[in-house]
Amino acid sequence: MVAIVESALHELRARLAEISDLSRAAGVLGWDQRVTMPSQGTEARAEQLSTLGRIAHERFTDDEIGRLLDRAEPEVASLPYDADDRSLVRVTRRDWEKARRVPSELRAEMTLQGARGHHAWVEARRTSDFASFLPYLERNVELKRRYVECFEWSDSPYTPLLDDYEPGMLTTEVRDVFAALRPRLTELVASAPEVDASFLAGSDFPPKAQQAFAERVIRTMGFDDDAWRLDPTVHPFCTSFSNRDVRLTTRYRPDDLESIWSTMHEAGHGLYAHGIADALGRTPLGGAPSLGLNESQSRTWENLVGRSRPFWEHWYGPLQDTFPALRDIELDAFVRAINRAEPGLIRVDADETTYSLHIILRFELEQELLDGTVALADLPEVWNARMKEFLGVDVPDDARGVLQDVHWSGGGIGYFPTYALGNVISLQIWEVVRRALPDLDEQIASGDLRTLSDWLRDNLYSLGRKLTPKETIERLTGSPTIEPEPYLAYLGDKLASVAV
Amino acid sequence: MVAIVESALHELRARLAEISDLSRAAGVLGWDQRVTMPSQGTEARAEQLSTLGRIAHERFTDDEIGRLLDRAEPEVASLPYDADDRSLVRVTRRDWEKARRVPSELRAEMTLQGARGHHAWVEARRTSDFASFLPYLERNVELKRRYVECFEWSDSPYTPLLDDYEPGMLTTEVRDVFAALRPRLTELVASAPEVDASFLAGSDFPPKAQQAFAERVIRTMGFDDDAWRLDPTVHPFCTSFSNRDVRLTTRYRPDDLESIWSTMHEAGHGLYAHGIADALGRTPLGGAPSLGLNESQSRTWENLVGRSRPFWEHWYGPLQDTFPALRDIELDAFVRAINRAEPGLIRVDADETTYSLHIILRFELEQELLDGTVALADLPEVWNARMKEFLGVDVPDDARGVLQDVHWSGGGIGYFPTYALGNVISLQIWEVVRRALPDLDEQIASGDLRTLSDWLRDNLYSLGRKLTPKETIERLTGSPTIEPEPYLAYLGDKLASVAV
Repeated sequence: MVAIVESALHELRARLAEISDLSRAAGVLGWDQRVTMPSQGTEARAEQLSTLGRIAHERFTDDEIGRLLDRAEPEVASLPYDADDRSLVRVTRRDWEKARRVPSELRAEMTLQGARGHHAWVEARRTSDFASFLPYLERNVELKRRYVECFEWSDSPYTPLLDDYEPGMLTTEVRDVFAALRPRLTELVASAPEVDASFLAGSDFPPKAQQAFAERVIRTMGFDDDAWRLDPTVHPFCTSFSNRDVRLTTRYRPDDLESIWSTMHEAGHGLYAHGIADALGRTPLGGAPSLGLNESQSRTWENLVGRSRPFWEHWYGPLQDTFPALRDIELDAFVRAINRAEPGLIRVDADETTYSLHIILRFELEQELLDGTVALADLPEVWNARMKEFLGVDVPDDARGVLQDVHWSGGGIGYFPTYALGNVISLQIWEVVRRALPDLDEQIASGDLRTLSDWLRDNLYSLGRKLTPKETIERLTGSPTIEPEPYLAYLGDKLASVAV
Repeated sequence: MVAIVESALHELRARLAEISDLSRAAGVLGWDQRVTMPSQGTEARAEQLSTLGRIAHERFTDDEIGRLLDRAEPEVASLPYDADDRSLVRVTRRDWEKARRVPSELRAEMTLQGARGHHAWVEARRTSDFASFLPYLERNVELKRRYVECFEWSDSPYTPLLDDYEPGMLTTEVRDVFAALRPRLTELVASAPEVDASFLAGSDFPPKAQQAFAERVIRTMGFDDDAWRLDPTVHPFCTSFSNRDVRLTTRYRPDDLESIWSTMHEAGHGLYAHGIADALGRTPLGGAPSLGLNESQSRTWENLVGRSRPFWEHWYGPLQDTFPALRDIELDAFVRAINRAEPGLIRVDADETTYSLHIILRFELEQELLDGTVALADLPEVWNARMKEFLGVDVPDDARGVLQDVHWSGGGIGYFPTYALGNVISLQIWEVVRRALPDLDEQIASGDLRTLSDWLRDNLYSLGRKLTPKETIERLTGSPTIEPEPYLAYLGDKLASVAV
């Protein structure tokens, strides 16, 4: 009996390993496309990616995977809940059942229309022409409605979309978190002190020097040597082809230093991928449980570490040596400037305090688009009114308004809330880290980031997708609930500290 | 009837397109591995490549491909012999029948042992320790003997190995060509004039400047913009992921200028890939008919163009501007130096005249290893004796002798002759080019390489694998036979011209 079941698990693992290889291969092709590919390679690359995706999907949704799961389940039932094999079978079952609910034709249509929508959006944003993008957006929303129909939901048709990025999360739960955030954030923004940050923009920050500085920082963050690389790209991202081949990308603007935090952000994602246990390689467990948890770690390294005073106590000297423009700026003034709050138009440029307001606006709009309470044609008008209401800013054109983000163009509805959830979760975990590492500030101030990253690897990253997002949060914090208070307290303290 | 058959061809094309996508994807992974991958990514990358290769092979050798070929053949029979569809069915049939002759277990074993052998060779070469490599070589040769047994052959058990790289070529045909070459080459080398080339080595040739110069040259060779890129690597190679995504790689040594010809060599391969007709994309026809024909074009651009006086009439000024070390060297002295013949130990460093002697030596040894007339353990001794006999040089150690080449370590037996065949074929085609483009020298001397590359694209590269190697050579030259005379005459003229 045991031999037979072990053989089912063995066969299941072999099939999942092939599917993982196909997905990782697609990842290599995607990285190459965005980092190195000559532009004329676009068309052939789209075919190659489509083929890899289709074969991986066909193989995963195969009936035989279900039969192997049926045979493997009774055997692993006696293992501890979080044992690798039991987790593998449980998570694969969930993924498999979800994947099989969506007809191949609908999936192919979403991929096709997403690609067309992306293409139309690039041009629409360039010319700030929402009307030219509208038909593509309509098509994407219509397909998302059909997609939602493939699933059951209790609270909101938005929940199946959210579930793609934040498994097990209900729309109502996110609403509760955001309802607690919004008034407090608005209040914080309104009372935020003005801070001089003029020296952070317009000075001469040569990209080569920025890259060298970023790489110096990354080398201390806890990566093994020869297991990562950093390349320039247009839109920064992180991807990995195993836990030992992590690709960070960033961009350098010659007149500001944003690349530091952008790179630490991607390196945070990278440390997550790097910390996944070896034993979870070539399985569906080799990733983060949700985008929110993944984002919690990019934000941890970007903000909780990268904007902290202890971090700069160690790194500000080297930064001044690298960029003479900062020679006469004192550490305190620098730390205040990089922690200020300032409402703006663009989400990706937003500071920590205003960022989540950009997200809450999108989260509300996405639900309204889906249930039809906001007509798509009215989107720019509604967007602009809400930006005024949420952040007090006037949107000059759609390129800097409703067209600024790529997500909806490719059909990515339900993705945005994970960014704000990541902010919130990062502080819940940070409280636990602080208790576990009472000397954390001193360690960071002495240039030791590895104690922190080792702790996060051992207690979080290494788990991969074995547990659900809520189970993962509960294991770390003792409660599965997403709690906004630590995040709000952190922002309150921050803004108090930047006032002179 | 027609509708049904068209549908078979359509279905065949769809399946072949997927297989092509998988192979091209593997190509991207291979390029990344050799150009950008962090070294710790090696293990996962091997799994990914193995999975892609296995799935592509399974899909290609599927019975259904045979049934589709059966149904497609009668329909395309009325098309011209070289029509895309008829060629596709004919070439696919040949590839399919060949691929199905080899049991999957043998193929997997060859891949595995090839990887192990490569690993052992790297270390053996580093320490110049042939004995440690011997068991791996024995295993590879043994597997090749089993591989040969999968095929029928009339003249030599070596022919099935040769056929992997030079389809349709008999061992006896190569023997005839090499029998004509060897005495004449030996004679040429023995009487080659001494030429001063001291200024080509040991001077200061900064790699960055070499790269900029190489890219300037490549940009004039006939590539579309944004359809290629050049990257540094340890062992130069060329690969492509479509005819519009060509990857050249090269290496720069700071004290010589070999990168110029190495890069032009890879760019010659690249122009072949770039020139394949769009209609042959995502089919088995999207490559060169043989390694020999492919090599004929890398040698054309490296040597027939890149070492010619007309080429340097245009480019020597820019070269002198780039590298002040050449300021006092006259054009004639430079051209003589880069065309000199000088026996040496290392194949990849060999000049045009001695190069083919290195190959003939390997070709003879490979046959003797296969039929057992030379014992593997005696290989270093035999190698060294033959190097003395062929080139008059004394081999100081096995690292610079029998261990110098990578090919045998991975099981690549039968590959070497294609290099020398490429040299010979390049001159046969060059004679035709000269007749078709009577002003070629003037064009090249004026910096116009595009007239040449356009002609080669239209008359050779665009054909892809539609015709066999012999058919391709016959279409260009009027005869299917590989003729050594033009190559020998070219070398004779060259060596006469370098004498002062």
